Amino acid sequence: MKACLMTIGDEILIGQIVDTNSVWMAQKLNDLGIAVFEMLSVSDTQEHIVSGLDRALAYADIVLITGGLGPTKDDITKNVLADYFGTALEFRADIYEQLTTFLQKRGVAVVDAIKNMAMLPQNCTIFPNQKGMAAAMWFEKDDKVVVSMPGVPYEMINFMETAILSQLQQRFQLPAIYHHTTITVGLGESIIAEKISPIEDSLPSYIKLAYLPSLGTVRLRLSARGSDYAFLQQTTNDIAQQIHDTLTEKYILGTGEDKLETVIGQLLLANNATMATAESCTGGQIAQKITSIAGASRYFKGGFVVYSNELKTQLLNVQDTTLKQHGAVSEATVIEMANNTIKNLHCDYAIAVSGIAGPDGGTAEKPVGTIWIAVANRQKTITQLLQTARPHRDINIELASNLALNQLRKLILGLL
Amino acid sequence: MKACLMTIGDEILIGQIVDTNSVWMAQKLNDLGIAVFEMLSVSDTQEHIVSGLDRALAYADIVLITGGLGPTKDDITKNVLADYFGTALEFRADIYEQLTTFLQKRGVAVVDAIKNMAMLPQNCTIFPNQKGMAAAMWFEKDDKVVVSMPGVPYEMINFMETAILSQLQQRFQLPAIYHHTTITVGLGESIIAEKISPIEDSLPSYIKLAYLPSLGTVRLRLSARGSDYAFLQQTTNDIAQQIHDTLTEKYILGTGEDKLETVIGQLLLANNATMATAESCTGGQIAQKITSIAGASRYFKGGFVVYSNELKTQLLNVQDTTLKQHGAVSEATVIEMANNTIKNLHCDYAIAVSGIAGPDGGTAEKPVGTIWIAVANRQKTITQLLQTARPHRDINIELASNLALNQLRKLILGLL
Repeated sequence: MKACLMTIGDEILIGQIVDTNSVWMAQKLNDLGIAVFEMLSVSDTQEHIVSGLDRALAYADIVLITGGLGPTKDDITKNVLADYFGTALEFRADIYEQLTTFLQKRGVAVVDAIKNMAMLPQNCTIFPNQKGMAAAMWFEKDDKVVVSMPGVPYEMINFMETAILSQLQQRFQLPAIYHHTTITVGLGESIIAEKISPIEDSLPSYIKLAYLPSLGTVRLRLSARGSDYAFLQQTTNDIAQQIHDTLTEKYILGTGEDKLETVIGQLLLANNATMATAESCTGGQIAQKITSIAGASRYFKGGFVVYSNELKTQLLNVQDTTLKQHGAVSEATVIEMANNTIKNLHCDYAIAVSGIAGPDGGTAEKPVGTIWIAVANRQKTITQLLQTARPHRDINIELASNLALNQLRKLILGLL
Repeated sequence: MKACLMTIGDEILIGQIVDTNSVWMAQKLNDLGIAVFEMLSVSDTQEHIVSGLDRALAYADIVLITGGLGPTKDDITKNVLADYFGTALEFRADIYEQLTTFLQKRGVAVVDAIKNMAMLPQNCTIFPNQKGMAAAMWFEKDDKVVVSMPGVPYEMINFMETAILSQLQQRFQLPAIYHHTTITVGLGESIIAEKISPIEDSLPSYIKLAYLPSLGTVRLRLSARGSDYAFLQQTTNDIAQQIHDTLTEKYILGTGEDKLETVIGQLLLANNATMATAESCTGGQIAQKITSIAGASRYFKGGFVVYSNELKTQLLNVQDTTLKQHGAVSEATVIEMANNTIKNLHCDYAIAVSGIAGPDGGTAEKPVGTIWIAVANRQKTITQLLQTARPHRDINIELASNLALNQLRKLILGLL
């Protein structure tokens, strides 16, 4: 079962908006076992929409279209679709009534253009819009399904969740599918590939492995397709276990949607422990990541952003002699920062970071991207030197934040 | 001049990543006067890549491809391209040397898979990757250009900015085009449209105005197309000046790529002043934004993330009675946080924020999205209550951060 996602309209083509609809739809379809074979963004012209539909229907069983259903003149999707499927528009009194009720409820004036929204193709199934104005249309032709929905994300999501996904499930015979994602940390793609090459080389043909890298982490996604869900699940989980045994907890932070900050939160809660941060060059990003998780207040006490040397001394009692002898970017400084955070804030764990994020400020001895990290509990303090050799401030901050969080994860797990 | 943007790989089709590359590329191409006619995401198979290329080359003059260039087995793009353009791969010793130097600089082991990265098609122009491993390839055929770049955003951006965009300008005859963006803050799209409607109604036909909204700001983008660059620039800048005179500094934070945090940095430097932050619900995001700007250490002393009430008292001397009588989310609390930050950290300006970011933790009196903000200098303290009425943690944090930064901007400018 193959699907094509098609967006219509200039907003995406001129780079005005990021196409988040397609990501969401792709996830939901994949979860149902419908592979998204292609995504296509076309402009608002009859010729282009038709050529996109021709291409999509040449190989896809399902085409989900978003956009081009507004009340303005450049929104021609429904006319083109009516033409394409050899039918005409008709005035749908039921849809018009639903629309006027919807608008009146919100105190919006019912202008003439609204009538046009109730002009809809015959010979298709119409779904009224519970969250907005444009209705969705479900066409069938030669055993294939084409659905057109508005491009407003929450309207599209509502159509999909309340109607389209379940209708697709009923309409098509779907294969069994099972996904498993292992999230690795601290290893590059090619080193992972080398370590797990025996596993990868002996993968059965119905299981695929994809590497999904981002800064500091690589997600390994196993996807199995077949007819017997339980069998696919069992086989895939066995392979995931082999990957886990090969890379171990040291390099695996979790599975699925896990992030360093969620895993750390779970570990701290499980240990009934608290943490705090003392950041210089990361400038608050570590605290921001930790607090991006709902409920972080149960384990995160707070932190310092000690950007100036003055504040390192005033707030974290870093010794003047330490700063003079070793500098702010030094192992000695981050050790004092971490230890005094634990002491002053009465928490169980602390992260401290001090470095040169760049793009300027480096020296021959301490080039841009030189970043010292310390993680500590009440018993010990572990330091690590990161040398990114990169001039990119944002990347250096992100790499340092992720490395520091991973060090904390390993400290809590007893791996340091 | 028409372009097609093509992404290769399963990451986008399975909904694992949002395609931000295409947005960035579409913006840059449009800036040059190259219209993006279509975007296409295809899977990692020879057949699909070829069929995508066939479609793209049928109407586009330029095809920019990202993705599918990694060292792993599912990355087949360069082999398919070599085939497609009737050439073979060859080992490029120069690229291999550049690659090993790049890796050694970062202390990364040079494994065997790296050799494969230096196997590149003959009969195309190779651009070495200054930020990563996979080289870019520039093919020409029948007066059309196909460029293949890695999908890692900062690698792609570096290729585009240092080579591809200028090469495209040279290679094709492009129209004169001039853009000017005014960045407004604190006003909704429809209110802006009402205020500047006389200007918008009298725009010459060769100048277009687009509204580009995001959380808290709306960018107003004037785009002029013609043959005489100097004339376009003059006319567009005159109109931008009219918009500025209408909306004034109160609602205009800057132009081009200005952000609140860059403008605040410039204002503080110009006033030889310093600032610090005291954050509760924003969890470090304001400090993170301020320190994302290179050179922030010249005006940013540091800050507190006082997530727990205990730390609000311990680090910022918020009175126990204040917390008991008014709660942590209150005007009285943020006033004390802001004033004591100035007093304790000896800085000229402070931002303080305390609120309920959600999704849980709200009450009838203080629902989720209730956020108090204070900005202060040594003379006065100005508070503002934000009530987002939204359950989204990330959006609430972003809205609060932007509002707080804009309040600080206005305070420094003497507008509060």
